[in-house]
Amino acid sequence: MDKELALYQARTDLALEAHENATQGQKDAAIPGVWAETETADGITVSRMEIKTDQAAQQVGKMIGHYVTLEVPELRQGDTTLQDKVATKFAKEFEAFMSRIGIGPKSSVLIVGLGNWNVTPDALGPIVVENTMVTRHFFELMPDQVSPGYRPVSAVAPGVLGTTGIESSDIVQGIVAQAKPDLIIAVDALAAKSLERVNTTIQIADTGIHPGSGIGNKRKGLTKDILGVPCIGIGVPTVVYASTIVNNTMDLVFEHMKQHTTNTDPLFGVFGKMEESERLQLVKEVLSPLGHDLLVTPKDIDKFMEDIANVIASGLNAALHEAVDTSNVAAYTH
Amino acid sequence: MDKELALYQARTDLALEAHENATQGQKDAAIPGVWAETETADGITVSRMEIKTDQAAQQVGKMIGHYVTLEVPELRQGDTTLQDKVATKFAKEFEAFMSRIGIGPKSSVLIVGLGNWNVTPDALGPIVVENTMVTRHFFELMPDQVSPGYRPVSAVAPGVLGTTGIESSDIVQGIVAQAKPDLIIAVDALAAKSLERVNTTIQIADTGIHPGSGIGNKRKGLTKDILGVPCIGIGVPTVVYASTIVNNTMDLVFEHMKQHTTNTDPLFGVFGKMEESERLQLVKEVLSPLGHDLLVTPKDIDKFMEDIANVIASGLNAALHEAVDTSNVAAYTH
Amino acid sequence: MDKELALYQARTDLALEAHENATQGQKDAAIPGVWAETETADGITVSRMEIKTDQAAQQVGKMIGHYVTLEVPELRQGDTTLQDKVATKFAKEFEAFMSRIGIGPKSSVLIVGLGNWNVTPDALGPIVVENTMVTRHFFELMPDQVSPGYRPVSAVAPGVLGTTGIESSDIVQGIVAQAKPDLIIAVDALAAKSLERVNTTIQIADTGIHPGSGIGNKRKGLTKDILGVPCIGIGVPTVVYASTIVNNTMDLVFEHMKQHTTNTDPLFGVFGKMEESERLQLVKEVLSPLGHDLLVTPKDIDKFMEDIANVIASGLNAALHEAVDTSNVAAYTH
Amino acid sequence: MDKELALYQARTDLALEAHENATQGQKDAAIPGVWAETETADGITVSRMEIKTDQAAQQVGKMIGHYVTLEVPELRQGDTTLQDKVATKFAKEFEAFMSRIGIGPKSSVLIVGLGNWNVTPDALGPIVVENTMVTRHFFELMPDQVSPGYRPVSAVAPGVLGTTGIESSDIVQGIVAQAKPDLIIAVDALAAKSLERVNTTIQIADTGIHPGSGIGNKRKGLTKDILGVPCIGIGVPTVVYASTIVNNTMDLVFEHMKQHTTNTDPLFGVFGKMEESERLQLVKEVLSPLGHDLLVTPKDIDKFMEDIANVIASGLNAALHEAVDTSNVAAYTH
Repeated sequence: MDKELALYQARTDLALEAHENATQGQKDAAIPGVWAETETADGITVSRMEIKTDQAAQQVGKMIGHYVTLEVPELRQGDTTLQDKVATKFAKEFEAFMSRIGIGPKSSVLIVGLGNWNVTPDALGPIVVENTMVTRHFFELMPDQVSPGYRPVSAVAPGVLGTTGIESSDIVQGIVAQAKPDLIIAVDALAAKSLERVNTTIQIADTGIHPGSGIGNKRKGLTKDILGVPCIGIGVPTVVYASTIVNNTMDLVFEHMKQHTTNTDPLFGVFGKMEESERLQLVKEVLSPLGHDLLVTPKDIDKFMEDIANVIASGLNAALHEAVDTSNVAAYTH
Repeated sequence: MDKELALYQARTDLALEAHENATQGQKDAAIPGVWAETETADGITVSRMEIKTDQAAQQVGKMIGHYVTLEVPELRQGDTTLQDKVATKFAKEFEAFMSRIGIGPKSSVLIVGLGNWNVTPDALGPIVVENTMVTRHFFELMPDQVSPGYRPVSAVAPGVLGTTGIESSDIVQGIVAQAKPDLIIAVDALAAKSLERVNTTIQIADTGIHPGSGIGNKRKGLTKDILGVPCIGIGVPTVVYASTIVNNTMDLVFEHMKQHTTNTDPLFGVFGKMEESERLQLVKEVLSPLGHDLLVTPKDIDKFMEDIANVIASGLNAALHEAVDTSNVAAYTH
Repeated sequence: MDKELALYQARTDLALEAHENATQGQKDAAIPGVWAETETADGITVSRMEIKTDQAAQQVGKMIGHYVTLEVPELRQGDTTLQDKVATKFAKEFEAFMSRIGIGPKSSVLIVGLGNWNVTPDALGPIVVENTMVTRHFFELMPDQVSPGYRPVSAVAPGVLGTTGIESSDIVQGIVAQAKPDLIIAVDALAAKSLERVNTTIQIADTGIHPGSGIGNKRKGLTKDILGVPCIGIGVPTVVYASTIVNNTMDLVFEHMKQHTTNTDPLFGVFGKMEESERLQLVKEVLSPLGHDLLVTPKDIDKFMEDIANVIASGLNAALHEAVDTSNVAAYTH
Repeated sequence: MDKELALYQARTDLALEAHENATQGQKDAAIPGVWAETETADGITVSRMEIKTDQAAQQVGKMIGHYVTLEVPELRQGDTTLQDKVATKFAKEFEAFMSRIGIGPKSSVLIVGLGNWNVTPDALGPIVVENTMVTRHFFELMPDQVSPGYRPVSAVAPGVLGTTGIESSDIVQGIVAQAKPDLIIAVDALAAKSLERVNTTIQIADTGIHPGSGIGNKRKGLTKDILGVPCIGIGVPTVVYASTIVNNTMDLVFEHMKQHTTNTDPLFGVFGKMEESERLQLVKEVLSPLGHDLLVTPKDIDKFMEDIANVIASGLNAALHEAVDTSNVAAYTH
């Protein structure tokens, strides 16, 4: 089971996908210890999930905790009206999420934008940081003059190990010791299982950021254990492994052939009878030695990143500051 | 045959790959009307090919003309010494290429950087243009004072249809009428059949740029017919279709299973017996309706683009100006 | 007079400033052949001026033609509400301007973004081009399917002589011959006389762009004479000569000392008695040999450029397309 | 005296300029407690200065400590050969500087790039950080496999108060507590007294970074007192106050008029008799209320920043790692 857990972790950072895998894609198959609900409106599907037990965690391959996922298939169309709707929905879900884990409207927040500024699909965190309203310095320097409806918010982009020489987790730990926030929000780019998830899905989780998740392949996590304060992770898939694209497409091809072929010969032979995880292993074995099992991203990633980062920054500004209205969050970022 | 031609064109802009397809990957299978030679040194493989007859053109799926391809599998490692070697090799091949089509050392040149500045994998042309030495204005404004060893070179990045509203071919035609170059060099990002080609392969062709080639999906070409002067195309694959990744990987998987399986059951059934083009068609049928058949690019594309654009700009500067030494081309660009 | 004309041209590209100079700063001093009116509302001052005669042109130092200037002193404060108001006001003035010179709602338009992408204070034109809605290709490719309320708009950024080797005027001429617009709108960064004008002032003029104006020091203009179609110039001052900063400050210092000094000794001696143009000449003589007479720009120019370019792009989108509402123009650009 | 000290601090961050002011520009006027020497070769002037006593510190207006300044008037010409020479010279001076304060070849170093990525003239620190070789993580993760000739180097760009909400000094303090370097090198953009210094002068100082210095107007410094380890500051002037441009030009104008005028009338009256600091005060009084006393930077700052940041990054790489040769430092950065 551990191997499989590792396998899925290497392939998807989304609890939703991991859960789908664990239930063999059967939406209503219940795993004991997992609570889940889903609602769809305005082109936005919100899934809320709680993994309650160690056994469920192992079965799904994700940590015990709460997960909220927004899926917006049309989000890559560049429709600003939809983007505003998603930002507002995200803000509402995020507010509820904070309440549930006991973060009040006055609690101070440190936003951490993980990832590498200079690698487009890894730049989510830094771009979000650039577009969030920071207010902590006003509370420090002129506490009497801060308008009501704001909380102290600070934001940093710690860089990645390869360009700083220091684990981002260590950098954040040092900053936390100085800035003493009540909550950390860590924003990171993720790997997903399929291309259509890229920049159309947003995950919120109270489990923090774990080693090996995200694109940047951290070695230490950002978690309450390490940092001493709660850490909410916000992630957006921006890349997919070539091998998972191949594997998922095979499923689709098999399904398609079954429906459209009248040929009575065996359709796929031994290959078609493999377990999904076995087949994925095979595909990886074939691609990896050739250096083909790259993380890939859509051609138009630059525009997608800008759009989704604005959605998240707008949503966070509205969720964190009561004075910022969730009905018109987009105006607060450019 | 036409359909197949179109099929391959949609999947690879590289004559080398098209030729491999046409010869079923058997390196020494001769197609009548195609001359080809290959040499490897210093980690750089240079393939020179001439497609001489209409029939060969149809069989390969590429235009009659000369093609030179540099393959440098290690080029994505960020090794500046190798990059300098490739720039020097590129310069020598490009000089020879120009000589063969009758372009002398005094002929004036217009470099056209096709593609979209703001789409990282499509920005090859604009970045090359930014790093080439332009000299035409010195010849126009102070012809007596230009040092020997230079020729008039100008360079433009015309943008793409979606952001200008004008075909890039039309824009170039207008500029050619004004600047009256003797030769056009059009630099463009291409689609390849496999991920390992991305930013490791450079193609030079005297056939110009054809509609539907390149990432930007032009509708009009840049050819001698249209522009009235010869046009050399320089292309680098920077993207791959998801469907071609899947299809190529299937070949590798089948090959791998044949070698490693002792199971006597049919390995792949009907699916395994399909022609490659038939299977690709199936994969496309499955992916396209879902919007999954995206053009994808490696995660680290930003750095790769910068490196290869510098290689080409350095190489062009050395090839175009005798006063710029091919032994140290890199110093002329930053 | 010619010398003086050249002098002022080298120092300000704004007709408004040139007019102030010519009237010695006395707002109501009338110059024969110049019509002018000014109105202020919502923090925006709109000045409309017509230079009607050759003599007036010589006296002011600007071409015969219509000039509209928007001055918004607070525009550098980053207030998005004000930016939207300015975009709306700009759109209304621009519509009226087009009507006056006979450009109807169906006429096709080519927007030309002059300047250098890689020089922040010179990047106004390219950034505006990037943010305008282009539609010409829809009219060309699917004329029956274009919604009412749009006109054919195309947009190009031709680059600058130093990086293309071709005069931008020649490039535009070539593109005009291909795209055949009814009107050209040329957007360019300008030099002003004082720092407070930088990115707070927008000039619209039906005189096109003239050699020596703008930052890029063109040698050929963009005018109806050269291009065969009307050309409206839109300019924003983004730089100031060090020498004009010095000279203007001297005026302010002299004024200040006169008011605040009771000393009966001569305050400024010979220096104080110089004509303004004489003194400017002196300052230039002193600074130029040292290479100190640089064009300078405020430290925060990056943010200012982005803001003003969005104002102009939003305004143009609303002015050019009836279907785009002037009351909410900002939503159409990011 | 304190007021004057503050005055000069607000106007120049260069000890060299402050020293010139204090000696009234007379190069050989000795101030007790200041040791200074200057040498010029290859177009590079190196000035070494030590301020030894409190009294000297007050008189000069700079802290007790060692200062090395490289002045390279031609550095803005874009000459890559000169840039390489400057990088090599910088590396040698920096090595000597580290030796003098007892930093050995194995000591670990944290490079801190102060300033704002998105404000071109303030981006020196972040660009240098991006181009330095970091090695600390290799020493942490695989200490046995690091080649000889390297030391542990890490590098961070902490951002600025306005975008993080946290003092950069506090962020650095937190990171120091985690990374435990033996030496901090803080790179920052500075304000100078005259435009010709901008991006032509590099200052090295063992006094760290002090509140109010640099462009970003820090409120807390980066000093040994605060951080517990020595801090070397590297600064390059990238901006100048409009008021200091005016004031310096006045000096030049007065000098010029004295030499070229035979008029026996008083040349400048009361204004000409003012002390320099008095006159500067007057200019500031006039400009400040109008918002004209901006920090300004040359139009071409983008290119200048890239060039000087590469010089410093190359120089640091060579100075910090024995395995990196000072004779060819430029190859190690792009």
